[in-house]
Amino acid sequence: MIVVMKPDATGAQIEHMRQHITSLGMTPQVITGQHQTVIAALGEERAGLTEALEPGEGVEKVLPIMAPYKRASSELKRERTVVKALGFEVGGKKVAVIAGPCSVESEEQIVSIARKLKELGATALRGGAFKPRTSPYSFQGHKEKGLQMLAAARAETGLAIVTEVMAPEHVPMVAEYADVLQIGARNMQNYQLLQAVGDSGKPTLLKRGMSATIDEFLLAAEYILDRGNPNVILCERGIRTYEEHTRFTLPLATVPYLNDKSHLPVVVDPSHGTGKAKLVAPMSKASVAAGADGLIIEVHEDPEHAASDGAQTITPAAFGQLMAQCRRIAEAVDRTM
Amino acid sequence: MIVVMKPDATGAQIEHMRQHITSLGMTPQVITGQHQTVIAALGEERAGLTEALEPGEGVEKVLPIMAPYKRASSELKRERTVVKALGFEVGGKKVAVIAGPCSVESEEQIVSIARKLKELGATALRGGAFKPRTSPYSFQGHKEKGLQMLAAARAETGLAIVTEVMAPEHVPMVAEYADVLQIGARNMQNYQLLQAVGDSGKPTLLKRGMSATIDEFLLAAEYILDRGNPNVILCERGIRTYEEHTRFTLPLATVPYLNDKSHLPVVVDPSHGTGKAKLVAPMSKASVAAGADGLIIEVHEDPEHAASDGAQTITPAAFGQLMAQCRRIAEAVDRTM
Amino acid sequence: MIVVMKPDATGAQIEHMRQHITSLGMTPQVITGQHQTVIAALGEERAGLTEALEPGEGVEKVLPIMAPYKRASSELKRERTVVKALGFEVGGKKVAVIAGPCSVESEEQIVSIARKLKELGATALRGGAFKPRTSPYSFQGHKEKGLQMLAAARAETGLAIVTEVMAPEHVPMVAEYADVLQIGARNMQNYQLLQAVGDSGKPTLLKRGMSATIDEFLLAAEYILDRGNPNVILCERGIRTYEEHTRFTLPLATVPYLNDKSHLPVVVDPSHGTGKAKLVAPMSKASVAAGADGLIIEVHEDPEHAASDGAQTITPAAFGQLMAQCRRIAEAVDRTM
Amino acid sequence: MIVVMKPDATGAQIEHMRQHITSLGMTPQVITGQHQTVIAALGEERAGLTEALEPGEGVEKVLPIMAPYKRASSELKRERTVVKALGFEVGGKKVAVIAGPCSVESEEQIVSIARKLKELGATALRGGAFKPRTSPYSFQGHKEKGLQMLAAARAETGLAIVTEVMAPEHVPMVAEYADVLQIGARNMQNYQLLQAVGDSGKPTLLKRGMSATIDEFLLAAEYILDRGNPNVILCERGIRTYEEHTRFTLPLATVPYLNDKSHLPVVVDPSHGTGKAKLVAPMSKASVAAGADGLIIEVHEDPEHAASDGAQTITPAAFGQLMAQCRRIAEAVDRTM
Repeated sequence: MIVVMKPDATGAQIEHMRQHITSLGMTPQVITGQHQTVIAALGEERAGLTEALEPGEGVEKVLPIMAPYKRASSELKRERTVVKALGFEVGGKKVAVIAGPCSVESEEQIVSIARKLKELGATALRGGAFKPRTSPYSFQGHKEKGLQMLAAARAETGLAIVTEVMAPEHVPMVAEYADVLQIGARNMQNYQLLQAVGDSGKPTLLKRGMSATIDEFLLAAEYILDRGNPNVILCERGIRTYEEHTRFTLPLATVPYLNDKSHLPVVVDPSHGTGKAKLVAPMSKASVAAGADGLIIEVHEDPEHAASDGAQTITPAAFGQLMAQCRRIAEAVDRTM
Repeated sequence: MIVVMKPDATGAQIEHMRQHITSLGMTPQVITGQHQTVIAALGEERAGLTEALEPGEGVEKVLPIMAPYKRASSELKRERTVVKALGFEVGGKKVAVIAGPCSVESEEQIVSIARKLKELGATALRGGAFKPRTSPYSFQGHKEKGLQMLAAARAETGLAIVTEVMAPEHVPMVAEYADVLQIGARNMQNYQLLQAVGDSGKPTLLKRGMSATIDEFLLAAEYILDRGNPNVILCERGIRTYEEHTRFTLPLATVPYLNDKSHLPVVVDPSHGTGKAKLVAPMSKASVAAGADGLIIEVHEDPEHAASDGAQTITPAAFGQLMAQCRRIAEAVDRTM
Repeated sequence: MIVVMKPDATGAQIEHMRQHITSLGMTPQVITGQHQTVIAALGEERAGLTEALEPGEGVEKVLPIMAPYKRASSELKRERTVVKALGFEVGGKKVAVIAGPCSVESEEQIVSIARKLKELGATALRGGAFKPRTSPYSFQGHKEKGLQMLAAARAETGLAIVTEVMAPEHVPMVAEYADVLQIGARNMQNYQLLQAVGDSGKPTLLKRGMSATIDEFLLAAEYILDRGNPNVILCERGIRTYEEHTRFTLPLATVPYLNDKSHLPVVVDPSHGTGKAKLVAPMSKASVAAGADGLIIEVHEDPEHAASDGAQTITPAAFGQLMAQCRRIAEAVDRTM
Repeated sequence: MIVVMKPDATGAQIEHMRQHITSLGMTPQVITGQHQTVIAALGEERAGLTEALEPGEGVEKVLPIMAPYKRASSELKRERTVVKALGFEVGGKKVAVIAGPCSVESEEQIVSIARKLKELGATALRGGAFKPRTSPYSFQGHKEKGLQMLAAARAETGLAIVTEVMAPEHVPMVAEYADVLQIGARNMQNYQLLQAVGDSGKPTLLKRGMSATIDEFLLAAEYILDRGNPNVILCERGIRTYEEHTRFTLPLATVPYLNDKSHLPVVVDPSHGTGKAKLVAPMSKASVAAGADGLIIEVHEDPEHAASDGAQTITPAAFGQLMAQCRRIAEAVDRTM
């Protein structure tokens, strides 16, 4: 940690900070520059240290040196993590494809589309039973009944089930039916939920919050890893910016950046990331080219009558074309799909 | 709702949309422009309608007309809401001042600072017992013991207690000790929590999510109101933007905008909104001038040794000066403080 | 244009707006909804109309229907534009590659790197002679001498020259040496410059402003097109968001979106778009997969001693690998490179 | 400057950086931490140094210590700058008020409104003769004729004229008529223009770019100051964020932050900053409370028929009320108005 003193900091203020750093269990090293003094604080950069140093008299700013996450870091664990669940695998040579409707609407619907998706190459089935909705007046999902419909689709197709869990007290129930638990973007910093999912040990797909930094994203993963659950899949789903022509802005540089900083696999959600059906296929191709380990895509037989997210949902026919195009990209980056 | 058709939309596509709108229970009215056709869909704009209309063939975009929130709207309820809890009041002529440390550290600490704050003019005491922390390695709060310390400070001073609740299952426990429940920015769209707080009927201070739009903010309030709890206080605490010199960007235009669109009282958090102790007093003054009904401010006897948020915390002495300055602004806008 | 009246707008206010719309040369059509009235204003949506309608009494908001740009629109011109300059071509089947150092440092440097880049597959040479620098104390470029060095490199290799012009009065001089004029992101709304470049008739690479919307970007292109210069290349170079781990956020959905809305070719700048050498290759691959017509990449023999932008600059060796990887992606999307 | 080496940086890489820092004229000081090494580079932090250090092998990141601006800094010049022009003064005890229409439309219009504004307390007259417009099809201003109309209004009222200059070659002409040159937000990084304005020596109101950081803003001022023109007024006019309910987001914490870091006076533009007439008065009050040295406000006799920016323009009557309210705030912060 580097404590930058103000140009007009007094000797007494510098000495005070030196002692304060020592009292916090770190070793201070004073560096006297031409214009101002900086003090390096050597030792373990524990959480909360910045906050303890910043209010000091004469302090201009405090610059952390080390990454705040540990278990998620590629420095701690060199080999890449491969998450597996019922034949579904993310992080290996094969690009994973999680597809399905935004909401589970009926058993008939979910079984029928699961069959088609499997045939077209999907490696897992997504579908919402618990739906986080911006408005209390929107459809909130079929809840446990929806989970049972998903289980029926799995029984029929063998596809692993990826579905969202929204509250700590629902984790046991959802974990009973699902193969992979999904934490939605709005819950990325719902720490009770992260801990509950960590305790469950279940493979977990963690979506990036819509305004989370990469450090915050990896610290959210850290909450799960810290409970002894190593099966975390990171999901970039777009961030909120000033752009208006897409629902969110999909920053694909996240993919190679995370591949460098972390050992966890990374999937991309081009459906939420763009909010526009027409942009899903090109951004899927771009994701695979950027090094994504998987895709998660909203598909519905009849987007116009989908219970939610119709505008960004593609048909099975469009999904088939997307798969054919992405397979060629996957080969061009020495992967399969 | 206005459905804008593409310039090259066919007659069949326009006719299809007309029927689709009818099937959704709205009345279509086709307007034929020079370059393109738009269809007005008359009737109640239910949640989910945009999603049902956007995927239609030949549709360019769908423009909602009505505000998506209802109970929070000043159109539905003209008289302004005043929230009251144990002598504490927000929304009346007097500007409310909620002050206290970020975290409750010990009974001695919280009782001592509560006494000083009351003397200096605070009208409620804040202090975190459950702390949402970005890192799993940071101090997470004293939990129920912290709540008991807050209760001791109330017994001593009579100040109402404002404290955060982070999970639906904690609501009954926190509600037992607190006078006002606080929903943190990271939980603004934790719908289970909003509903639990709504069911409790307790006065609730709802912080704006760091990347929430105003519509999303009011829809979050709607979740609480919809459960029959009318005692919602809105809190602007800064949004995430590209700016780096402050921790968040504090957009004070939120205050007069909300005063126009909603009947709910609005308080401002200049501590989180800026992240810098030096900016807290000027932004407090600006908030009162902009029409805020209250302030929520982090105060600690010794910011350098605070358990959290030291950099944005002010001392009781600085708080006393802030109060004196803000009182003059309050008078200049015909309020008291 | 749709004028949404407030729910409590009076009959007189609605009548006033009806007449105001007529006086502005449009035809009003009043639509009476359940909660509020909207008035469609039929006719040509001239620039400035929104501004004239919004201040009306009783008006809640004004929603434009038509895209504000015309000549840049794919509705006006269906066939895609191919921009050609001295053998260099953007917008055809072959993906264009503009490569070179951020700044032109010496004739020796630029000739030497131009030779290598040509051999490795670059189709044009970039290099800054006039440098827009955030600080007045940074290297500002060799100006006309730099242009002469670029001309020497062209004489040697036959590569077309792409270089930035920063002021209207420099356009004739830069146009004398360059094959393609570049408008930097900071000048995207420097209208005098856009007009001067439009008047020159020279092929122009227009970079998106770092906080420009797509509509603003296409309107900037419109300034050039409107002067009778059809040779505009659009360049996505990253936008400013809250993200800190990359210099800018590179929103690749811009590429397929622009391919749909406009006939102009689109190139991507992954060097500025990420600011990190390590991310340039993966984002180049992603750009080609997303449908980009070209790339513009910073390459320097010795990034550590480059006069500017070292952190995002790659070596010729890395550029060679990037080309090999991107060629495979180009084939996977039925293009060449 | 602090060079943070990667945890796995080799001894040779550290030694290389040590020598590289020396070769750049700085003194390296190696600090060996528990997990990684950092190297302090002591000496003058020249522009471009970060760029030279970042590409080094084994370097993780480079952290600048010193502010990049010098002449604009309150460290270099302790006493606050007061800018004066024809009786108009910004930076003293009296809060300056620049008011007038967005565009100069006719001599009659501008003289008439100037009279009213002077009577109501405005201390300078604003009005656009050269208008930067997003669309080439919008009204571009009356140019030199508009300047003559402004001069007529000054002759009539004695009010100083503040008007925008858009191109370096126009500076002499605009400087002939205007008392204060205005650089618009879109030209904040038009360096040729900044230099031309710097050379003119004229008082200059510099608007913050809509996505400029504070450092970039002060570096733009530095371009003017560096040419020997000390008369710079900084203007916060709102930044671009994801917010949609206002045209821009007005971050008032800029005001006290700049008051701390710079000696230059700061004015706020609540008209562009909000884009909504109804929000102009509350944000004016908030600006004065936050410590602004002045306001710049769009006023038009008939906003519905204004040539531009009608939605954010207030009437003279509303301006009179705003002045009365702001005067009370000014007194509450020990200023006059």
